Amino acid sequence: MPIYNAPLADMKFILNDVFKAEQFWQNNENLAHVDAATAEAILEEMAKFAQNVTHPLNRTGDEEGATYSNGSVTTPAGFKDAFKQYAEGGWIGLAADEEWGGQGMPKMLTVLADEMLFSTNPSFMLYPLLSVGAGMALNSYASQEQKETYLPKMYTGEWSGTMCLTEPHAGTDLGIIKTKAERNEDGTYNITGTKIFITGGDHDLSENIIHLVLAKTPDAPAGSRGISLFIVPKFIVNADGSLGERNAAGPGSIEHKMGIKASATCVMNFDGAKGYLVGKENEGLAAMFVMMNYERLSMGIQGLGASEFAYQNAAQYATDRLQGRSASGVQSPAKPADSILVHGDVRRMLLNARANNEASRAFAVYVGQQLDITKFSTDAEAVKTANDRVALLTPIAKAYLTDTAFQATLDAQMVFGGHGFIREWGMEQCIRDLRIAQIYEGTNGVQSQDLIGRKTIKCGGAFIAEYIQEIRDFTNDLSADLNFIKDATLDAAAEVESVTQYVLEAAGENVEFSNSAAVDYLHAVGLLSFSYMFARIANAAKDKDGEFYQNKLSLALYFVQRVLPELAVRIQKVKAGSEIIMNFSEDYFTNQA
Amino acid sequence: MPIYNAPLADMKFILNDVFKAEQFWQNNENLAHVDAATAEAILEEMAKFAQNVTHPLNRTGDEEGATYSNGSVTTPAGFKDAFKQYAEGGWIGLAADEEWGGQGMPKMLTVLADEMLFSTNPSFMLYPLLSVGAGMALNSYASQEQKETYLPKMYTGEWSGTMCLTEPHAGTDLGIIKTKAERNEDGTYNITGTKIFITGGDHDLSENIIHLVLAKTPDAPAGSRGISLFIVPKFIVNADGSLGERNAAGPGSIEHKMGIKASATCVMNFDGAKGYLVGKENEGLAAMFVMMNYERLSMGIQGLGASEFAYQNAAQYATDRLQGRSASGVQSPAKPADSILVHGDVRRMLLNARANNEASRAFAVYVGQQLDITKFSTDAEAVKTANDRVALLTPIAKAYLTDTAFQATLDAQMVFGGHGFIREWGMEQCIRDLRIAQIYEGTNGVQSQDLIGRKTIKCGGAFIAEYIQEIRDFTNDLSADLNFIKDATLDAAAEVESVTQYVLEAAGENVEFSNSAAVDYLHAVGLLSFSYMFARIANAAKDKDGEFYQNKLSLALYFVQRVLPELAVRIQKVKAGSEIIMNFSEDYFTNQA
Repeated sequence: MPIYNAPLADMKFILNDVFKAEQFWQNNENLAHVDAATAEAILEEMAKFAQNVTHPLNRTGDEEGATYSNGSVTTPAGFKDAFKQYAEGGWIGLAADEEWGGQGMPKMLTVLADEMLFSTNPSFMLYPLLSVGAGMALNSYASQEQKETYLPKMYTGEWSGTMCLTEPHAGTDLGIIKTKAERNEDGTYNITGTKIFITGGDHDLSENIIHLVLAKTPDAPAGSRGISLFIVPKFIVNADGSLGERNAAGPGSIEHKMGIKASATCVMNFDGAKGYLVGKENEGLAAMFVMMNYERLSMGIQGLGASEFAYQNAAQYATDRLQGRSASGVQSPAKPADSILVHGDVRRMLLNARANNEASRAFAVYVGQQLDITKFSTDAEAVKTANDRVALLTPIAKAYLTDTAFQATLDAQMVFGGHGFIREWGMEQCIRDLRIAQIYEGTNGVQSQDLIGRKTIKCGGAFIAEYIQEIRDFTNDLSADLNFIKDATLDAAAEVESVTQYVLEAAGENVEFSNSAAVDYLHAVGLLSFSYMFARIANAAKDKDGEFYQNKLSLALYFVQRVLPELAVRIQKVKAGSEIIMNFSEDYFTNQA
Repeated sequence: MPIYNAPLADMKFILNDVFKAEQFWQNNENLAHVDAATAEAILEEMAKFAQNVTHPLNRTGDEEGATYSNGSVTTPAGFKDAFKQYAEGGWIGLAADEEWGGQGMPKMLTVLADEMLFSTNPSFMLYPLLSVGAGMALNSYASQEQKETYLPKMYTGEWSGTMCLTEPHAGTDLGIIKTKAERNEDGTYNITGTKIFITGGDHDLSENIIHLVLAKTPDAPAGSRGISLFIVPKFIVNADGSLGERNAAGPGSIEHKMGIKASATCVMNFDGAKGYLVGKENEGLAAMFVMMNYERLSMGIQGLGASEFAYQNAAQYATDRLQGRSASGVQSPAKPADSILVHGDVRRMLLNARANNEASRAFAVYVGQQLDITKFSTDAEAVKTANDRVALLTPIAKAYLTDTAFQATLDAQMVFGGHGFIREWGMEQCIRDLRIAQIYEGTNGVQSQDLIGRKTIKCGGAFIAEYIQEIRDFTNDLSADLNFIKDATLDAAAEVESVTQYVLEAAGENVEFSNSAAVDYLHAVGLLSFSYMFARIANAAKDKDGEFYQNKLSLALYFVQRVLPELAVRIQKVKAGSEIIMNFSEDYFTNQA
């Protein structure tokens, strides 16, 4: 059976030592109710929940899967009770406003709570995650009455939420959706259309499901400027808040998938279902992006969670598995063989994963802090800077953290040899469950287009320039004993700055360039970001005594020597341009001749 | 439903134009029975079999899986009939000696036939594959009587074969196996022990199963020098060749796996089963390596097959899927969106896969040719050179071709967006089925140790030096219009030569070095090998008219610009050494602190 021990020591180190979270919270009047002791207590409680409640349901959930029958979805055994416990613990509203029953906790804390759930049961985690995302969109764009009607019950878990965007013919390109919204005389709308890939589109965990649905009114402008957002509840909510009639909105089937099998991925049919406009007509995409940006950071944390889980299990297996002897002589003469930890290649795979975990965790907390500034700070300048940073870093958090995590889970599986392929060890499920994180909420290719296009070329590189300035300001101040990470980070910053200039120029000359260069550019910025995180980690560890801190410095050195070299090849691929890619005729791809 | 069209045009180009196979065969008296027309007819027949018989059984086989009940294994519906057709077509013995009922076809042809089966149904392919491997081991080491008893029926498919190495506690480290072989007075042995991960350990495709089992006699030397090889038939074969009593050898259960679910992976129990020694006591490992080396090249072809299948489906999906518009203006104004082939990033993923396929296919044929020289040539010098080359290239064929193929299938899946995660599209099964190829028959890490250790350091770099010399001899003769691939290949050869020198020196100074550097070193040699293959492809295409040949040159250029740059980072990682890896204490890995 797989193991999981919440990495509380590293979480506390990152919050307390790397980001000095308590000081940050106490200096902000809107976060002054949070201190280190509260934060640690929350993490410890979540660790228990993850270890004792969601972890034991992970494999059984995969084996049983969500099932569809007669128009409704049943979740695997144990999910309903776990969701009830989760809701009663107040976890759904952990980061939500207290006004609606939330706990008002900062994002830099909640990302760590989320990580533990993603480590232990990503399928389960998706159910509350969608509620939280829907709640955020409503909180930003819904009317006061809509908020009062829906938000409190979503945070208690009595109701849950979904996000209905994709249609069979329209995924990335939402401008061509066909779902119709026809206005009734009473101001409600009739929603008609089919949505696919709807996570939690139906289930048995809550009494009602609040679907947020993108649709087009008959006279809407073409493309993405004509998209409106609607609340479409599974059961109509009466004026007194009780549940009324069943709406004409429900699942037609669920998908059979590679992984996250306990998460119901529904085809949703809206047959003239009653819907309520959120905000104004044709302005739905902005509201949906509130939700999507939240989900995108969450997918990065899904990556981190899986990578941490995979690492822990692989490290334990490597410790227990006796095979072969050390090259430098027998290490365990009393045993028939040494543990496979004596082999450098096994360590290399484990260290790749561990370096990924610690840098990803710091990065998630860092982005969480930026989000907290945008939400809680009263300093307009700081809010603007943080907004720019969040815009820049969201695609990196989503795509880079899931790409590196996927590689880490593969490395961890390989440590098991043939056993990694066998279901009972849990590694293969971890990989199957994680793979979707690179695909959904906008594929990692789409994230890369977002980074290089909207977030870089469109602003003339301003966002990345500000970010690089922050990295330089921090890194230049490092003491000489940290030159290994200082020099590496400053070099990486210079290389990313230079390749960004190259991107801006090449994009001006050739409209095809950026699409071809996007993924490699994103990885270049991701590598710089991890180097920056290790610079912050090393700086927090360097003056402290004990192996825990020494190991942080060693892992930073491992990153510099064994991971960061990939930056050069990413830059070379960016500079390879698009000519050779675009020169092939469209026919070439399907023709062998 | 997934598609598959056998890539016959590329196969013929590689055989006829790149390797001038007919000339090679006709110049060898032992292969003079093979000409281009025969070879093409064989490929066309196999294409029909793969497209019409094994391909339709791929998904159903995955859904149903092999099942175990009451001590025996049932294969999925359709497998039995398909195996019968395959056997009756003479495919099992395609490369086997005519003396035993085989067709005596050269390896450079059979690798291409194998590719088609691996593309369309890797689970199915493993059943005959194990028979062929077992047949090769018997052909090399068994007595004349044993060959007469077993080989003909294995090539007709009446019987099949397995390879029983791994035990619960002993995978890579076969020296510590516990299975006992006790000699009886009649010269037979009683075999007792448990083997795991036995592919085709039981099934319903053939009347009898001939297990080749590694075991230790009571007085055997410790470690790998005390391993003997035994024939352990499921049913004892009577003197007249008929089947006698059931032997005490059978499956205890089958594994539940990530993929290749239609292939039965058995736990095998030998309870004093009757066994017949192959060759001499304590010399079993050499015989098993005949089989293992064959399987290792086959795993590389499994990679190629999966990558080709994934590419074809992704290219078709990209052609059919309309999303977004080209950056350079609307391409299909009559349609609601352009095909996603207008996006450079989609093309990048497809071209990565296609470049992998064409280089891998050429490399498989190249290694096949070297194997044919070792088997059929009468020139002792040529045989020696080819033996060295096969020794060097087997781990690369196994590990590099599966590593790059796995990445290619991931890229292909990503082209599908969310649909790639859904079972009906076939991409997720392709990935699950392929993943094992990186793990079994010696993990890719173990292959890398073999390359850097036994095949490089042990011979002082002689094998790689000979290979680089061959590459230089060929590449130096290229005409000036091929400078793009000539220069790239010569540069890569120089870099691999230099890093090999580095490896030899570093290994002499530090026994831990090679294990830590192995995987990156293997990838460096793999990249050089693919560059060499593209040099051969480009040379064969350059003077020919038509888009088919022009596209070969363009794909070679794509490889140079977009794949080969990875060589630099592999070399940098080799040179990073083992110090930072080995400095962590063993406790570090499982402790968070």
